[in-house]
Amino acid sequence: MPDSRSLLEVFDNQYPQRDYKIEIVAPEFTSVCPKTGQPDYGTITIIYTPDKKCVELKSLKMYLQSYRNAGIFYENVTNAMMDDFTAVLQPRWMKIEAAFTPRGGISSKIIVQHASAV
Amino acid sequence: MPDSRSLLEVFDNQYPQRDYKIEIVAPEFTSVCPKTGQPDYGTITIIYTPDKKCVELKSLKMYLQSYRNAGIFYENVTNAMMDDFTAVLQPRWMKIEAAFTPRGGISSKIIVQHASAV
Amino acid sequence: MPDSRSLLEVFDNQYPQRDYKIEIVAPEFTSVCPKTGQPDYGTITIIYTPDKKCVELKSLKMYLQSYRNAGIFYENVTNAMMDDFTAVLQPRWMKIEAAFTPRGGISSKIIVQHASAV
Amino acid sequence: MPDSRSLLEVFDNQYPQRDYKIEIVAPEFTSVCPKTGQPDYGTITIIYTPDKKCVELKSLKMYLQSYRNAGIFYENVTNAMMDDFTAVLQPRWMKIEAAFTPRGGISSKIIVQHASAV
Amino acid sequence: MPDSRSLLEVFDNQYPQRDYKIEIVAPEFTSVCPKTGQPDYGTITIIYTPDKKCVELKSLKMYLQSYRNAGIFYENVTNAMMDDFTAVLQPRWMKIEAAFTPRGGISSKIIVQHASAV
Amino acid sequence: MPDSRSLLEVFDNQYPQRDYKIEIVAPEFTSVCPKTGQPDYGTITIIYTPDKKCVELKSLKMYLQSYRNAGIFYENVTNAMMDDFTAVLQPRWMKIEAAFTPRGGISSKIIVQHASAV
Amino acid sequence: MPDSRSLLEVFDNQYPQRDYKIEIVAPEFTSVCPKTGQPDYGTITIIYTPDKKCVELKSLKMYLQSYRNAGIFYENVTNAMMDDFTAVLQPRWMKIEAAFTPRGGISSKIIVQHASAV
Amino acid sequence: MPDSRSLLEVFDNQYPQRDYKIEIVAPEFTSVCPKTGQPDYGTITIIYTPDKKCVELKSLKMYLQSYRNAGIFYENVTNAMMDDFTAVLQPRWMKIEAAFTPRGGISSKIIVQHASAV
Amino acid sequence: MPDSRSLLEVFDNQYPQRDYKIEIVAPEFTSVCPKTGQPDYGTITIIYTPDKKCVELKSLKMYLQSYRNAGIFYENVTNAMMDDFTAVLQPRWMKIEAAFTPRGGISSKIIVQHASAV
Amino acid sequence: MPDSRSLLEVFDNQYPQRDYKIEIVAPEFTSVCPKTGQPDYGTITIIYTPDKKCVELKSLKMYLQSYRNAGIFYENVTNAMMDDFTAVLQPRWMKIEAAFTPRGGISSKIIVQHASAV
Repeated sequence: MPDSRSLLEVFDNQYPQRDYKIEIVAPEFTSVCPKTGQPDYGTITIIYTPDKKCVELKSLKMYLQSYRNAGIFYENVTNAMMDDFTAVLQPRWMKIEAAFTPRGGISSKIIVQHASAV
Repeated sequence: MPDSRSLLEVFDNQYPQRDYKIEIVAPEFTSVCPKTGQPDYGTITIIYTPDKKCVELKSLKMYLQSYRNAGIFYENVTNAMMDDFTAVLQPRWMKIEAAFTPRGGISSKIIVQHASAV
Repeated sequence: MPDSRSLLEVFDNQYPQRDYKIEIVAPEFTSVCPKTGQPDYGTITIIYTPDKKCVELKSLKMYLQSYRNAGIFYENVTNAMMDDFTAVLQPRWMKIEAAFTPRGGISSKIIVQHASAV
Repeated sequence: MPDSRSLLEVFDNQYPQRDYKIEIVAPEFTSVCPKTGQPDYGTITIIYTPDKKCVELKSLKMYLQSYRNAGIFYENVTNAMMDDFTAVLQPRWMKIEAAFTPRGGISSKIIVQHASAV
Repeated sequence: MPDSRSLLEVFDNQYPQRDYKIEIVAPEFTSVCPKTGQPDYGTITIIYTPDKKCVELKSLKMYLQSYRNAGIFYENVTNAMMDDFTAVLQPRWMKIEAAFTPRGGISSKIIVQHASAV
Repeated sequence: MPDSRSLLEVFDNQYPQRDYKIEIVAPEFTSVCPKTGQPDYGTITIIYTPDKKCVELKSLKMYLQSYRNAGIFYENVTNAMMDDFTAVLQPRWMKIEAAFTPRGGISSKIIVQHASAV
Repeated sequence: MPDSRSLLEVFDNQYPQRDYKIEIVAPEFTSVCPKTGQPDYGTITIIYTPDKKCVELKSLKMYLQSYRNAGIFYENVTNAMMDDFTAVLQPRWMKIEAAFTPRGGISSKIIVQHASAV
Repeated sequence: MPDSRSLLEVFDNQYPQRDYKIEIVAPEFTSVCPKTGQPDYGTITIIYTPDKKCVELKSLKMYLQSYRNAGIFYENVTNAMMDDFTAVLQPRWMKIEAAFTPRGGISSKIIVQHASAV
Repeated sequence: MPDSRSLLEVFDNQYPQRDYKIEIVAPEFTSVCPKTGQPDYGTITIIYTPDKKCVELKSLKMYLQSYRNAGIFYENVTNAMMDDFTAVLQPRWMKIEAAFTPRGGISSKIIVQHASAV
Repeated sequence: MPDSRSLLEVFDNQYPQRDYKIEIVAPEFTSVCPKTGQPDYGTITIIYTPDKKCVELKSLKMYLQSYRNAGIFYENVTNAMMDDFTAVLQPRWMKIEAAFTPRGGISSKIIVQHASAV
């Protein structure tokens, strides 16, 4: 797993008094299967309600690209992203969906959700 | 940010005794990224339950066009619109979705909701 | 506004002991904008739970056609329809959606709901 | 109305300990309008949670075909089906949707739901 | 019914502290109708919240292929799969949908759900 | 095979000096399989360049309905229609496509073309 | 048939040295059936290669609206449009397609083509 | 490769004086990869102009099912089908398309055409 | 009309010995109607066979953006682009399609083609 | 540019007496922009008529993956593929389409065709 978290940059949420949602769709995600060494492809969808911080989109692109040559399973990459985003953004609410293209006629989607302790 | 709010015109809601919804979809929104100077494009969807006032559609078109050459971030333009509409219309309930076209393979949507204090 | 209500004909609901729904979609609605004199076009969707009466479909077609050359705003035509249908049918529940085609790059939908006083 | 109910055959639900759903879509339904004598066409969707019995699919096909030359209104055919299925299957829960093709530019859907008395 | 259950392999859920979902879509399922001997075709969708174990995808493919020449009814194959998966994975929650292609103009879908006793 | 041809009515082509096309799509065709007695369903598409006569649409509907309870194979019904239409209309050019819904997982389309001897 | 031709306005083709195409789609056409008095609805598509003149779009809209309450058959309205456009524009090439919505489960399209005598 | 050809049955073309087309789509084809032993899935489309004989559809279904457990490559199965059909039917013209589902993120289609020597 | 042509940059075609095609789709084009001052929106599609030069994509983006606040008619903007591209690229063949969004319920597409004198 | 050509493996065309087509679609292609270092994504479609050799699909997958971290422009990667395939397969006819995802709101497709010298 790459040290991707440090790539994420944030900016101040200018409307913290409102609960609103930001939905980001990144259909060009690719990583590598740790068992076969073959590339995997998927679409990452991130939806969150920001608290004090929002993620800067260009740094998000760099973050996602850091997995390009990393060997990591579907379930783990999705959960690792959730760990990274909640650590850096501390959102009020967040959901990540990772939908991978078919392998052997079977396609998979991992769906992880987070709500702040407040 | 342009002084857009003054462009909005209203007319009297003729059925204030009913809670009903008005949904407006404007797929030809464009503004300018304040960081790169490049144009952004998106679809603005406004849904609201009017109280005493409804927004006049031609003035809404002018309002949206006032952002054409303004430099403003995704999150801010959506929240600013909500501020303008709630100030002018004082709706019972309102939701604004701003869905922007992909940049660097990543697309974004901002979703803001409002309910009157009553 | 035409005297359209008298065009609506009803027949006895033969299954009043059941709460069921009737959904009617009429994509060929047209009226005239009272401000510009230009024709408007839309799709009217009516969903209701009948009580004692159901609307006869041929009379409904005539009712909708009665607006063909009438000058009336989006919000008003939808609310006027709700007034007419609830007066004639006294349904247990009713919802009317009127989705109009784009004008100036902006499209509108009006959504009105009704529940009987019981 | 044909004596269709006797055509329905059942088999024992082999998993009565579970609440599960069976959804059946039959897009080739046709009957005759009793007023005009013209054929009507529609899609019948049946969803139910079986109790002790499930409907056998070939007999269901015969049941639906028994309406081919019968004159019956939209609302009545849907409610009559519900009467027949609940009498024969005694399901824990059942929903029938009958979506008919447009006549005079207007299309109709009838939606009937049932829950057992338990 | 084949002895398919023994084909399922599992791996440890690395994020048991989170309630998350895994959705698997397998559109290339085929079995044989026990009455007619004709092949059936369908799409199996499995969604679950893992507890201690996740299903390994290659073994899942082998599991589904074990039905290729087995004679089994729609309702039974779906419920048998639920029995197998819950026995092997003991998931916190699981849903299986089996959508079969049309026969005689009629298509069927079986939907089974499971929640752990906790 | 019913004596359907006599049901077709025509009217004078008012623009015989032009080669133009009339395309008619009738998605509600049904007949009966002569081998199994089961109903077949299909979409009939007729395209033609009229010479002196055009087909009247209401009579065409009656013509198509005359097959409702007739037992006839796919290939024959399409060729029989071509015989009837060319006898009655003597079009400059005509094409008939009959697309039938799947049976046993297999769907069929018959495509017949005609050009006048001139 | 209304005197619609006089409503068409033209402007000078600024690129007569090139053979290029202009395609115009008007999905909001409506006229009246002369037999039943019921409204018809359709989409008019006009494609042409201009010679000296192009049609002005606002006048085209007025031209199409002039049929709103006129009783005219499908074949005739399409051919009449071709007569009007070729008289006013004298295009090098022109094609008009008029696709009408279903009546009695049957939909129609009329396709007329024109090439200048040169 | 199974001895499938003997399964094909024919009937007399009743309209040999016309050149017409029969298009058959069979989306439920499956065979086995001879290298990996894994099942392949595809859609077989057959279009032909019959001469003296047409293929009987039920026998065609049996023919296609005979490949269910046969190990054969994409290119070979499509060409073998063409050999079988042209031997049995001697069509005036024939085209076979075999579109297989993705393997390793790559999908394949084989397209073979035949014209009689006349 | 802006002096846009000077914005176009080119690079050497590295495969001039082959006739191949480059297709570019730019759905975010906007200009201004010279009559009403209102913004127009459209999709520009450019297809060409390069000779010695290819257009650099970032400069093409700048070229298209130069029309953002320019008042120009549909027909003229498309033909002006063709003049600019053929002057700068001298392609062996080129086609430009400009498809504009609906105004007053009517949408337009301009299609211009060019072949080199060789 | 990687030395990819040596990765391509072939097998003997077993039906060289027939002109038939093989169409291969690979939607998971990715390479790197040599100017920006950013990844590009696209779909490669290869259609060819084999002569003596066909390309083996697993080796094709490896060939396409060899571009994963290579910096190469759209036009060059497509033409280089054509050079590689024609050198290794010597097909009778071949066409390659490379459709890349949008960058800066603009998407590109490169289309290269080849016919053998015979």
